[in-house]
Amino acid sequence: MSWMGLSLIGAERGEPGGPTFTGWNPAEGVALEPRFHGARPQEVERACVLAEQAAPTLAALPSRQRAVFLEHIAEALLAAEADFLAVTPKETGLPPARIQGELGRAAGQFRQFARLLEEGSWVDARIDRALPERRPLPRPDLRSVLRPVGPVAVFGASNFPLAFSVAGGDTASALAAGCPVVAKAHPAHPATSERAGLAIRAAVVACGLHEGVFSLLFDAGTEVGASLVSHPAIRAVGFTGSRGGGRALMALAAARPVPIPVFAEMGSINPIFLLPEALAARPQAMADALATSILQGAGQFCTSPGLLVAVEGPGYEVFRARLAEKLGAASAAPMLTPAIAERFREGVSRLAARTDTRTCARGESKAALGAAALFEAEARVVLAERALTEEVFGSCAVLTVARDAAELVRVASRLEGQLTATVMMDAGDTALAAELLPTLSDRVGRVLMNGVPTGVEVCPAMVHGGPFPASSDGRFTAVGTGAIRRFVRPVCFQDVPDALLPPELREANPLHLWRTVEGVLKQE
Amino acid sequence: MSWMGLSLIGAERGEPGGPTFTGWNPAEGVALEPRFHGARPQEVERACVLAEQAAPTLAALPSRQRAVFLEHIAEALLAAEADFLAVTPKETGLPPARIQGELGRAAGQFRQFARLLEEGSWVDARIDRALPERRPLPRPDLRSVLRPVGPVAVFGASNFPLAFSVAGGDTASALAAGCPVVAKAHPAHPATSERAGLAIRAAVVACGLHEGVFSLLFDAGTEVGASLVSHPAIRAVGFTGSRGGGRALMALAAARPVPIPVFAEMGSINPIFLLPEALAARPQAMADALATSILQGAGQFCTSPGLLVAVEGPGYEVFRARLAEKLGAASAAPMLTPAIAERFREGVSRLAARTDTRTCARGESKAALGAAALFEAEARVVLAERALTEEVFGSCAVLTVARDAAELVRVASRLEGQLTATVMMDAGDTALAAELLPTLSDRVGRVLMNGVPTGVEVCPAMVHGGPFPASSDGRFTAVGTGAIRRFVRPVCFQDVPDALLPPELREANPLHLWRTVEGVLKQE
Repeated sequence: MSWMGLSLIGAERGEPGGPTFTGWNPAEGVALEPRFHGARPQEVERACVLAEQAAPTLAALPSRQRAVFLEHIAEALLAAEADFLAVTPKETGLPPARIQGELGRAAGQFRQFARLLEEGSWVDARIDRALPERRPLPRPDLRSVLRPVGPVAVFGASNFPLAFSVAGGDTASALAAGCPVVAKAHPAHPATSERAGLAIRAAVVACGLHEGVFSLLFDAGTEVGASLVSHPAIRAVGFTGSRGGGRALMALAAARPVPIPVFAEMGSINPIFLLPEALAARPQAMADALATSILQGAGQFCTSPGLLVAVEGPGYEVFRARLAEKLGAASAAPMLTPAIAERFREGVSRLAARTDTRTCARGESKAALGAAALFEAEARVVLAERALTEEVFGSCAVLTVARDAAELVRVASRLEGQLTATVMMDAGDTALAAELLPTLSDRVGRVLMNGVPTGVEVCPAMVHGGPFPASSDGRFTAVGTGAIRRFVRPVCFQDVPDALLPPELREANPLHLWRTVEGVLKQE
Repeated sequence: MSWMGLSLIGAERGEPGGPTFTGWNPAEGVALEPRFHGARPQEVERACVLAEQAAPTLAALPSRQRAVFLEHIAEALLAAEADFLAVTPKETGLPPARIQGELGRAAGQFRQFARLLEEGSWVDARIDRALPERRPLPRPDLRSVLRPVGPVAVFGASNFPLAFSVAGGDTASALAAGCPVVAKAHPAHPATSERAGLAIRAAVVACGLHEGVFSLLFDAGTEVGASLVSHPAIRAVGFTGSRGGGRALMALAAARPVPIPVFAEMGSINPIFLLPEALAARPQAMADALATSILQGAGQFCTSPGLLVAVEGPGYEVFRARLAEKLGAASAAPMLTPAIAERFREGVSRLAARTDTRTCARGESKAALGAAALFEAEARVVLAERALTEEVFGSCAVLTVARDAAELVRVASRLEGQLTATVMMDAGDTALAAELLPTLSDRVGRVLMNGVPTGVEVCPAMVHGGPFPASSDGRFTAVGTGAIRRFVRPVCFQDVPDALLPPELREANPLHLWRTVEGVLKQE
């Protein structure tokens, strides 16, 4: 196919006129064809108005037809594999195998939501029937169900050009909820974004839906995104990116005449706790597993480990040496954008320049390449210096050594909100693990044991999101079927005639849902 | 009992030293005994620190023991009935029968949450078991469950001294979720607040819980509340009150280094749509029902009707005349506080002074008494003038007449977020009702037909909360068992040994919960 470099405003294309930009090949350091045209203000306006018009139509679409729409998107994405392979590796520096895997994941997300809609019970239907004889007052008939909030603005992420971008998890969960989407493409992979947008548009057309169900806006800067978040038609925002970007959107959304929620997933340092027995028993195997996790995707994952906390004792020296060896021997890897590579180099240099921190491994990062780095500091330094627990996006970790288990727990208790925390433990560590768990549960979205945090499974039980600043709102997950809850709210119907009720609430339960009837789950 | 007028800081009493104030008898216009002492800054600090210390202990308490705690609170509240009857009517001007009813409601809320905890499935346990043979990568074991967010600040409401105050729905749902509560008493009913706080404290002691599970702070102004919302230990806020107050708390919470959610329920005008057939068939009966609703509690309910929308046609004149007669004949009723009475008078005067609005009924409001008022305006005026759809807290309504059904729908489509919307309809109005419903569902928390919005049932299906500005976050209800969702977030456990998992997630399902296993609801 050929790329036009123009926004998709409902069924139309945007027009040239806004500021232009191009993709960039980070591996070769060259600009890519074609030029992309930023959306003009009237195009942002039109996309939002169309989304507002489409909202009631999509909300009224029976849930199982919405499932068919999601299946169409999944198919359209998979059918575009050759196009993605032609442009995405160039735009991102990511290898083709990763792109194939991520495409499968992106399509899989739409399919998982389609299955959720087919089953249907996720709408949390609740029924409390009338009690006309109750004294002193009769009870009316009350029924509630989750309904879509309206148009959602989705910001593509730089580090997942498919699974967290235009056709990523935020878009999938918003459309699944019944909310039109206005997506803002990440400027680091515009051709990928245009192709993904066309796949969604094809599904909109194939299903005969209102054109406003989906639009895609380009912009190299922040203006289009800011107008989008400020537009009255937009009712919620999905974002994956930096803390600065996330906080800026949160501030914009909170300052609106009608504030709206922003679901910003802003990354974290994903601490790893190496408990004494495990460290003594298998220091090399743990170092190998963690090195692989730290190096994966050049460390450009929200769940990449950035802090390792051990207790001084048997195995520690072996672990440190092995991890340093593995990270030091890894070749520098292309990073997603020159700006990300630059920030990574700065972060590594800041740590290297500290006198309270020892450099254990540090390759040479140059141009768009990032080389892994490992630093070591005493736990008391980590406890005192916030800079050592700030994320350096890329393959960079701080290894800290506590004098005893109590100090390790203290490090855990001082952490900011995190997406994940990992505990490496053996049977003999159980008491310490049990002591750590409540502290970790209070600070993270996902606690894992004897694994690595990279690799986020898409499934009903996944929680990808943690207390601020890992996410803007730790009450919601951005991955897995639970993500749909971000874009719905309950509406109660009191004494509404059966024929006027949404099918989910009708007395005969035509969709055969599990419903909470008088407080009891029933499928009748 | 005797009232001390001092805050409850965990197991201790606050000390005199802060600014003092008294309750006020609005019916008699006299100050009440004793003097209440505002909490000093170190007391706010101590209450928050205690709550933070109590949080892990309350989170670890088995759900069924938490239910026992809630039952104890319910009993302690009911046992204090004589004390409430001695002080609450004086502090609020509300009649004893209302206080008795509200006390039953307050106790009932704790009992309803106790039953929810006993059953236990509300924690949304999800289990996706490991798939070690999956290719290309095995799947780990993933299990998630809702857990408490931590200490919650609760602001008592002026208009429900029991059911939405110190021992009201916010406190009940936060404690049910496993979150310690630091309550800020509303200064309009301090003696009621002290007594309710003592009931909760008695239950804390009886159940042997950490003293930090509950504290109560007094303050006549806004300083204590502001410090509370800004304190790092506080993780969420519950508030019922004015839009100004709610927005101020939202701004404070958003500006924190770690922002937290504010659940502010800020009231609305609860529009009533009188469809043509119903209006023609039973204008007098509808006028009577609505007059009763508008007059109930001197109109001091969040769900009091403030806008009535009819179509010009048969029955309209009869309806208007009857409603005006009923409201005009009602005697002026004591309002909760002199400030509320003053704002009511101002609001009524502003409407009366408009040249585009006709006064249909207006009694004489004086001192602390509020007399009902009814105004009439054409729908085009209501569409053009925001002032006619702003809440006047008290028995004051605007009746608007549309030229046709389309204009009535247009009025609905221009409304701000509302707690409720009511449709009065007969069988012949079904098509118009069906047309109205999606518009109303998009703007309100509860749609009701042929009823009155006052009277909010406490039950699983209730939604008391609507899109902004009715609530700060329309995704949550403040009444009914669903209110517990405001104070929890999901945590995922990956490959965590069974013995270390919370009981809700253990393989044997010891609590016999309904759980989502591989996406399917099961009780095994």
